[in-house]
Amino acid sequence: MAQNKKLKSLSGIIALSPSDQILFNKIKDIIRNSYELFGFEPTDTPVIDRSSVLLAKVSPDTEKEIYKFQKGNNDLALRFDLTVPFAKYVVFSKNDINFPFRRYEIGKSFRGERPQKGRYREFYQCDADIISKNNLSFLNDADIINLIYKTLINLDIKNKFIIKINNRKILLGFLKDFTDKTDKVMLIIDKLNKISKKEAKKQLKALNIKDEDIEKIFNFIKLSKGNNVLENLRTFNVNNSLMQDGVEELSTVISYLKDLNLPESHYEIDLSIVRGLDYYTGTVFETFLKNDKEIGSIASGGRYDNLCDLYGNEKYPGVGMSIGLNRLFYALRDLKLIKNVDYSISKVLILPMDKNRISYSLNLITKLRENNINASIFENEKNLKNKLEYANKIGVPYIVIIGENEENNSNYTLKNMKSGEQFILNIDKLIKKLS
Amino acid sequence: MAQNKKLKSLSGIIALSPSDQILFNKIKDIIRNSYELFGFEPTDTPVIDRSSVLLAKVSPDTEKEIYKFQKGNNDLALRFDLTVPFAKYVVFSKNDINFPFRRYEIGKSFRGERPQKGRYREFYQCDADIISKNNLSFLNDADIINLIYKTLINLDIKNKFIIKINNRKILLGFLKDFTDKTDKVMLIIDKLNKISKKEAKKQLKALNIKDEDIEKIFNFIKLSKGNNVLENLRTFNVNNSLMQDGVEELSTVISYLKDLNLPESHYEIDLSIVRGLDYYTGTVFETFLKNDKEIGSIASGGRYDNLCDLYGNEKYPGVGMSIGLNRLFYALRDLKLIKNVDYSISKVLILPMDKNRISYSLNLITKLRENNINASIFENEKNLKNKLEYANKIGVPYIVIIGENEENNSNYTLKNMKSGEQFILNIDKLIKKLS
Repeated sequence: MAQNKKLKSLSGIIALSPSDQILFNKIKDIIRNSYELFGFEPTDTPVIDRSSVLLAKVSPDTEKEIYKFQKGNNDLALRFDLTVPFAKYVVFSKNDINFPFRRYEIGKSFRGERPQKGRYREFYQCDADIISKNNLSFLNDADIINLIYKTLINLDIKNKFIIKINNRKILLGFLKDFTDKTDKVMLIIDKLNKISKKEAKKQLKALNIKDEDIEKIFNFIKLSKGNNVLENLRTFNVNNSLMQDGVEELSTVISYLKDLNLPESHYEIDLSIVRGLDYYTGTVFETFLKNDKEIGSIASGGRYDNLCDLYGNEKYPGVGMSIGLNRLFYALRDLKLIKNVDYSISKVLILPMDKNRISYSLNLITKLRENNINASIFENEKNLKNKLEYANKIGVPYIVIIGENEENNSNYTLKNMKSGEQFILNIDKLIKKLS
Repeated sequence: MAQNKKLKSLSGIIALSPSDQILFNKIKDIIRNSYELFGFEPTDTPVIDRSSVLLAKVSPDTEKEIYKFQKGNNDLALRFDLTVPFAKYVVFSKNDINFPFRRYEIGKSFRGERPQKGRYREFYQCDADIISKNNLSFLNDADIINLIYKTLINLDIKNKFIIKINNRKILLGFLKDFTDKTDKVMLIIDKLNKISKKEAKKQLKALNIKDEDIEKIFNFIKLSKGNNVLENLRTFNVNNSLMQDGVEELSTVISYLKDLNLPESHYEIDLSIVRGLDYYTGTVFETFLKNDKEIGSIASGGRYDNLCDLYGNEKYPGVGMSIGLNRLFYALRDLKLIKNVDYSISKVLILPMDKNRISYSLNLITKLRENNINASIFENEKNLKNKLEYANKIGVPYIVIIGENEENNSNYTLKNMKSGEQFILNIDKLIKKLS
């Protein structure tokens, strides 16, 4: 129908079906509970802020994607991630915050980009950050990586993902010896899983990098995968102090991961991981599903020691990670990695057989809810078959049938919708059975 | 500092302090759990939609408040409530929905109005709706009112609120006998708690209502409060069939509330409640805190039988309610109606006394989290006093102190931060104590 076409949301803005929404929210709950297990506190930063605040440090490419508008005399924008509003929050609320501050935020961000697989205009991010004043121990880098591990384990996808870890200082130090366009070179390296080696070479050449140095870069990245990376790097001819720092930091983080008992099957060093965003200063990491690399990283982050410099003069080193929930949801659903969940919020549905049974039914529903049993009621003029059909469709595990007999005998017919078993019970036994 | 001034959010857009945020989220959780107790399923409608969808039926006053912008060729807007996006969702997703559909949504809406007490530019609404196809029993109106009651009871404010209930058909039928400007008259009546009687008279006169009819209106509203309203209305000379329908519907809803065991101390009929929004067609209700009427209604709603007409030809009668969470939060906090909550997300904070204790500490934290104990770690170079200060500030109930002695003896010093008690425990006893 033509009218419905007009109702279609913009592409990249999703409204899930009711059953998908329940699944989505269960994933969101698992993520939240994992973050709280690690002692992260909730934050909730504004969606709308002044453009001058949100756009303080964005690349022209990102700026094109941002939703901007005017209201009154204010130039406003919608947040495009949860990190920038958080950096502002830290500086603005520093007197209310106890540092180190472990915070999480699960909320929507907005980017008006042309949507493609795994990209959305309106999307949920689940961020966790630890931020401190002046100093922040590297055990926090490890604990954030550990949080990714634990969250994905809690989502029941053990052995199905790998966290790839690096430290930007290593590559940066390495590159500094033969180019001053390190940022641009790192952006090209960041795209290595998307563009061909040939294309990368072309782009590096355009930056006036010599052929022999391009070879060096590729060799360096190639050499730097697997379990011996740290040893290789130490034996490498490292004179650059930035690179030395990076190797030491990475080595410290890896040793903490071992202390945290993170199984080595679930992480690896990968020196090609640099992260596109230029606010990262040290540790960086991305997470890939083993059977779908196309979808890109499902959990990424790193250390940002200077981000708050945008908004003040004090030093607030931080480390954080973000899970793209929409992307993760579709990946888990489509790869059938998520176990079937119970699709009903109600545990029991009450079915009065006719209008005269409503009073008795409403009495019951209050008693059930007082006992913390999720209960709803379905009343229509139609026959039992029609009522049972509805119960089946919403996937409720139990129904209570209330007819004249039940009311006259002060009892209830309980039916288990999976097994088909039926019981005639008084109120106490009914509550016990459903609790 | 000048820089910090620029960082200040727009007025009416709040970012809570960490401890307030924890309190805010606990209230949000109680609301969500109450909605799920009643079998409502989660929905999550888009924040951004086409202006043509969101503005399909808004008054010019509301339209002024809406955030509108262009991106590419699209005229877009931010949602200003959760009802309009839901109506669209119902029509667009009707094939995925099992009717009657009980749904809730807790999310932000946006209005660029001049903020005043209890009004925000960016605000949380907690909506619950029941929507059906063709017919919807009045027991749903009662269950929605019941949900307001139960949610506020779960928020621990028994005896501190009153739900005021009406049916728009009553006043509408009454007014139709002597004016055809019923909508405008009802808007004036809606403002009766904000404007003086004199001002109301002036506005009614401006609509060409005769003096004697204005008196009639005031008498009608005055008469129609308290426990005998329904009887009064029946003995009233009611010839208007719309008014008769309203009286019967209201009477049915009230009788269902009694069946649901809603205590009469928590609700009353009040014929002056009409709700400003003109999509309501029958039952309407608002909720007031007894010791702060200034703040306005904290939970309101009603029946809307024709809202989905905006987007299609089929009939989807619905009834719903909305809690304004920001307003409720400040009211509960400022009136000290909310019990002190535990302000720490972590149950235990681990304090390694020096860098050499980090490995042993990280081993412990993984074990605690495997046992579902919320745990975090604080490592800095400073002395014990400094570490304890941090623990006190974040309000964590337990700390574990790890020094050389503890590690050498494979045990842990646990301290209860409230009682001051200390215990030296092995891992099994520590986990048991904290579980």
